[in-house]
This record gives sequence, structure tokens and C-alpha cells, in this order.
Amino acid sequence: MVYYNSIEIIRKKRDGYKLTQKEIQFLISEYTKNKLSDYQFAAFLMAVYFQGMDFKETTDMMSAMLHSGTVLNLSDIKRPKIDKHSTGGVGDKVSLILAPLVASCGVCVPMISGRGLGHTGGTLDKLESIPGFKTDLTVNQFKNQLKKIGVAMVGQTVEIAPADRKIYALRDVTATVDSIPLIAASIMSKKLAEDLEGLVLDVKCGSGAFMKEYKKTKELAQTMIQIGKRSGVKTRAIVTDMNNPLGDYIGNSLEVIETIEVLQGRGPNDVLEVTLALAEVMLTIAKIRGGRKLLEKKIVTGEALDRFREIVKLQGGDVRIIDDYSRLPVAKNKIKVRAQKKGYLQNIDTFNIGMLLVALGGGRVKKEDLIDPSCGFKMYKKIGDHVEKNECLIEIYSDNESKARIVAREMQRVFTIKKKPCRHKALIREILT
Amino acid sequence: MVYYNSIEIIRKKRDGYKLTQKEIQFLISEYTKNKLSDYQFAAFLMAVYFQGMDFKETTDMMSAMLHSGTVLNLSDIKRPKIDKHSTGGVGDKVSLILAPLVASCGVCVPMISGRGLGHTGGTLDKLESIPGFKTDLTVNQFKNQLKKIGVAMVGQTVEIAPADRKIYALRDVTATVDSIPLIAASIMSKKLAEDLEGLVLDVKCGSGAFMKEYKKTKELAQTMIQIGKRSGVKTRAIVTDMNNPLGDYIGNSLEVIETIEVLQGRGPNDVLEVTLALAEVMLTIAKIRGGRKLLEKKIVTGEALDRFREIVKLQGGDVRIIDDYSRLPVAKNKIKVRAQKKGYLQNIDTFNIGMLLVALGGGRVKKEDLIDPSCGFKMYKKIGDHVEKNECLIEIYSDNESKARIVAREMQRVFTIKKKPCRHKALIREILT
Repeated sequence: MVYYNSIEIIRKKRDGYKLTQKEIQFLISEYTKNKLSDYQFAAFLMAVYFQGMDFKETTDMMSAMLHSGTVLNLSDIKRPKIDKHSTGGVGDKVSLILAPLVASCGVCVPMISGRGLGHTGGTLDKLESIPGFKTDLTVNQFKNQLKKIGVAMVGQTVEIAPADRKIYALRDVTATVDSIPLIAASIMSKKLAEDLEGLVLDVKCGSGAFMKEYKKTKELAQTMIQIGKRSGVKTRAIVTDMNNPLGDYIGNSLEVIETIEVLQGRGPNDVLEVTLALAEVMLTIAKIRGGRKLLEKKIVTGEALDRFREIVKLQGGDVRIIDDYSRLPVAKNKIKVRAQKKGYLQNIDTFNIGMLLVALGGGRVKKEDLIDPSCGFKMYKKIGDHVEKNECLIEIYSDNESKARIVAREMQRVFTIKKKPCRHKALIREILT
Repeated sequence: MVYYNSIEIIRKKRDGYKLTQKEIQFLISEYTKNKLSDYQFAAFLMAVYFQGMDFKETTDMMSAMLHSGTVLNLSDIKRPKIDKHSTGGVGDKVSLILAPLVASCGVCVPMISGRGLGHTGGTLDKLESIPGFKTDLTVNQFKNQLKKIGVAMVGQTVEIAPADRKIYALRDVTATVDSIPLIAASIMSKKLAEDLEGLVLDVKCGSGAFMKEYKKTKELAQTMIQIGKRSGVKTRAIVTDMNNPLGDYIGNSLEVIETIEVLQGRGPNDVLEVTLALAEVMLTIAKIRGGRKLLEKKIVTGEALDRFREIVKLQGGDVRIIDDYSRLPVAKNKIKVRAQKKGYLQNIDTFNIGMLLVALGGGRVKKEDLIDPSCGFKMYKKIGDHVEKNECLIEIYSDNESKARIVAREMQRVFTIKKKPCRHKALIREILT
């Protein structure tokens, strides 16, 4: 019977009909229990790619994925529980700064993050470049840390949304990643397992994001806001630009250094801007007064950095890295990539910067790949900047000299320099509530 | 590398681009060698379902499938080698009659057929209801029989188009069967392995066919004609009606009986009509003069039946069945299904007659299923016929009395009787060259 129902459901979606809650629940639950084959689910995913799913179907799918695993109960934590999620980009270390910053203002941040895959980096990989840092806490360890310091940053444990884990792996190899209902259901099924009162989404748009088009980015943001609302979680979204990498540094340990710099008030403006915009929304949801001023104060007084230090300490990391970056694994060998002509930086192929980090070993092609936390890039120029001939555009950090040379050569194609001046990109595109 | 290329090819098709011959060859060959996963190929098939393939892509796919296995060399057979293929229907025993008939006129018919699946019957299953009949000849046995009597009717051996075998099984369980380029490539990859000079296609249209719409049926026919032409095989197609089951009998041994009746000049008109239309086209391609008159003569003189007898004999079957139907496995228990009201037969759900044969055990749900050759149906009325209340519509043959009763009850819904007279269906819809 299972066999036949599943074909009928695939055909129904293929032919553009809406699926019932029961049909969606059936597919997700059978697939999670390994009773439905990968090939049937792959055909279903591709049918969804073409025919889409309406809001009700998307919510039903999210709900089936959410309830495929553990849903946390954090009701004994008094502080407002609010998390942040980014759709992923290049150089996006915002979570590392934001979590301790808003926690130092009294928000509880039960942050469950992912690893990098393809061109995007992952919060867990960045944190694990700190010697000793552990991201695989048990649910009890996670809860205890939240009670103690109001913030913990961990990996998706086996218990949280196992359906999503399995479905995501299949989407990744069947060209069915970039579907709005599938992305929305995937993200929200994990985030709603965190027992949140509020959620802020950083939805990236541009050459370094999964979504290149503004219209689709906004549609994704609005779908997730609606799902959150339906589930009783105050959800807001900020659409931010990902045509430039975010910040000056890209690469795991380099981004930890930039995190510490920002938490000391010395980081680049773009990272600070995005962080503060998201943090302000979180404070508003939490009904904590003070807004941007409070956030800036927490940086100036060092309270935000102290909270970061506590996270590192409680999660087993070497806190000495905060005052001594040489204790982090950072490549010693560097190559500067220089402009071949003078002009204005018209475009950066940020997606390919992400892929070149993968080529250096700092990212993953497959989930199982190990990464080298020491390599990365330092950006010297962003879109709209004027450049002189031979001026440095980007610097490559890698102790694998031959790889570094290949990447340096490839890197020339990433930057488009033209005579005509062009605008700097607006960073915050829209705040959606 | 394989891993990445395959995702890129799926994405390319998903996004509506045309695939190159190399890309198609790569997918088919990797999949046949089990180097490409079922789930990636399933996603590819669903992308093809939505985006289609143009004529060049379809031909490239057919060619890759054709060359995945043995291509016969029948060059030492002098007679013109011409085969017939039907897209499948209910009660379609034409191949069993046509092959010996045109062979008796001097055509060589190297017929490689399939088994029934779902609502359609299969030539091999029908032949195998003859005690002892073997369809699994080796390539050498096949060739020797062709030399001897100009006709052999065998199964798709492991050597012929293994890619098609694997792909068809996957399409069947992923709701990707009804795609014109996939159907065309599948059929032609098997038929062109037969080293033919000519091919005639019986493309069925209507409630008992895979294609319900005339426009799509014609598109499929024309695609196959073009593929044949490109490969140097004179290909013609006849679009025939499949809103009614073909002939009076449906079911494996019952259709063998009807075959023998037609070969003796006693069969129903519709079966004879379709057979003669296809046979005439085959004679024309073979440049054998005489047309319909010659064909009718071969029936009257008994030469056609004699050729059928030789096939049965050479393939190990019991030739005594030809003169003594009681030697065939035919169910003894019969139930007549009667009209519940008087009027005109407006519609027959021929697809469901096929599925009810499956329910009796006379067809297959899965490739591995065994079938009961003895069960089946006898048609008493066709669309357009006048029926009195309590007049017999169809008779059920099955020795499984409880199944027979259930099927008899379900059968009422297959027939739609209305007061208003309606037309009989035209049988031959169009001849395409």
C-alpha cells in the first residue's frame, strides 16, 4: 500500500494539485523512517520545485519535519528566548557576535546552528577553529548553559528535526535546493524546535547568497514570517545585501578574530551594521528597552566580549585566544592579489569567493569533508571602491602554497573593474515584520 | 567529478536548457553502470517530465540507451526485416496475429516484445499461456528461427537496451512514465536494436491507452517516426482508438483463442481491421505487392495459421491447442455482468477493465508478479451499442470465485449507459508516414 500511495502523491503534486496534511505527513514520516525510497522522494522534491507548495502545504511540511524529532521544552527559563538565523553567505560571522551581545542585554539565545556547505560558511565550523571548543552538547548541557549565561551555540543534535537532515542531504545532490517552500520548511522546522518566543531572520540577497533575486528573497522571508506567526513565534526578517562578502575576513579562524574585533568596537562597519540591526529587532521582540544605545554600551563596557568569553569557556574552548590571536590556527603564508588595471570595482563574484575558500580546504563539498580552519581571505576592496593598478584587492591566507597560487590566479576573475564609477551597495535592504 | 557533473546536468535540464549529446550519454551510461544513483536519475526524469526534450535530445537519449546493449546484426537474412510495436492497450493481441500473417507474405519479423504492466497486457504473457511456449531464446536461437520461418517472438533479452530496462523500472515508481520524449526514447531504443529496415507503430489513443489526448498521441507518433527516419529505418504509425478494449476477449489464454479465431477468418472485425491496416503498411515498406488481398488470401488458405503453428512448435509450445482450446488454461467459472438499465453504451472505462484483470490476477502490479493466464473477460457490448435492461455487458472468467464476485461488482462502474444514442468509435484514427 505504501508503495502505491507514494506514487499517487508524487503524481498529484506533479500535476499541480495541492496535497493534504495527511499526504504530506505520510511522505515525510515514511521517508524519515526509511520506508520510502530516496528515488521516490527525489522525484517528489523535483515536482515541488516545479509546482511549488502553497502556504498551507509549506506549513504542513514544516510541521511534519519539526515533529519528526525532539522539540525542546525551555519553559523553565525565564528570560525571553529569541534566536537569529541567516540564510547563509560569505564572511557572515554575525551569529558569533550577535549571540553574546544580545545575551548580555538579557535575551536568552538558544542557538542551534549548521555547518558550512558549498560556498557558505557555517557558525559551528568557525567556533570549532577555537582550540577545544565543543558544539556537540547534550540537551541537558545546552539547557544548563542557557540557565547560567543565557546563551549557548551548538550543532543540530540527532534529536532535532531528523527529517530535515535527511531531506537536505537529498536536495543537495538532486538540484532541488533552491525552492522557496523547501527552504522555508527546512529552516523553520529546525528553529521552531528551539521553543522560542521570537526569531529574527537575516535573509541574504545577491551573488554570494542562495537567492540572487530580490523578489524571491522577499517571498522566502515572508513565507518564513508567516510560518513563524502561525506557530506563535514572533518572526521578523531583515533582507541584507550579499553581493559583497560581509566584513574584511573570510575563513574560519580569521572570522573568529574579526568577531573579537567587532566585540571590542574595532570591527568593520558592515558587520557591525548588520549585527546591530538584527540585535535591535531581537531586543524589541524581547521588550527590552534601550535599543541601539544599549547595544553600543555593551560593546564599549566589554560586557558583550565577556559573554563571548564565557561561551568559549563553558563550551571547552581556549579563552586565551581572545587576547592572543596567535593561539588560533591562522595560515602564515599569504599572497596578495592585485588589480590589473585602474578603475572602479563594478562587481564581485562573491559566490566564487566562497567556492575558492572550499578549494583552499576552508569549506566543504560534501558533508563528510574535513576542513582546514587556518586558511581564508582578507578583503581590501568592496563594490564601488576606486582601485589603482597593482593595488591589493584581496589577500589569500593558506599554508598550502601550490593551492594558494592556483586560487590567486582564479581570484582575478572574481573582480570586475571598469572605468565608470559605480555605487556602493546598500547593506540593509528591507526590514519585514 | 561524476558526482558534480551529474548535479549540474540535472540543474541544467531543470532550468530548461538543452543538454548536449555528451551530457546525455554521460547520464545514461553512468546510470546503466550503477555509478549514478537512482535518486539523481529520478530527479533528472522529473525535470525532463516538466521541461521536455527536443528532438535532438530525444534521439541522443534513445541512441545512448540503444548502445547500452547489444545491437543485433541480421544482415545475413535476405528478407526485409520489419517489426511492429504497439504503445499498449487492453485486449490488444494484434502482434500474435500480425507476425505470422506478414511472415507468410515474405516479411521477416524479428519481434522482441514486453510483458504486461499495470492495465496493459503483454505479448509475452499471452504467448506463455500456451503450455511449453518459450520466449527466452538466445540471440542465436532467435536468428536461426528467423532464417527458418521468418518470424520469432521473444522477450527483451538481457543484452538488448539494458539502460531502458533500468530506466523504465524507475519511471514506473516515480510518476515519470507519461512523458513523450521518455516514451519515444524507450520504445525506439529497443526496436532499433533489432536491425530493422522498417517499423510500423500502433499508437493507441483513448481511455485504455497511456495517452488519452489525441494531440499528444500524434506528437508521440511523430517523434518516433522522426527518430526512426534519422536512424535509417522506415517508420510509419497508425493512431488507433483505445476507448474500447480491442476484440471480444481480454485475458491471456482467451486472447490466444481469439488470435487463432482471427487467423481462421472467424475473429471479430475490430481486431482484423487493425491487424490488416498495420500489415498493409508493413507490406508496402517491404515492397511486397498484393496489399489487403494478399493478406486476406493468406488467412483463407490457412498459410497464416500454419506460420503461427510453426512459431508455437519451434518455440516449444503445445501445437495441439490450436485445434483443441481445452488444452489452454481457461477458467471454468464465469459470471455475467448485466446492464442495470436500458439505453446506449456511452462510455467504457477501458483503463479500469485492464486494472480489473490485474485484480483477477491476469496482469501485474509489479514486474516480479506472477500471473494467472486462465482468467479474463468477454466483451458483449462496445461504445455506441444499444443495450436492454439485464442484457449482458461483459462476462468474467475466473476460478477464484470470491475475486470474480468482487470484480463483477466493480465492473458495473466501468460502463456508462445513457438514454441518448451515441456514435460508435472510429477505429483507425490516422495513418502517419
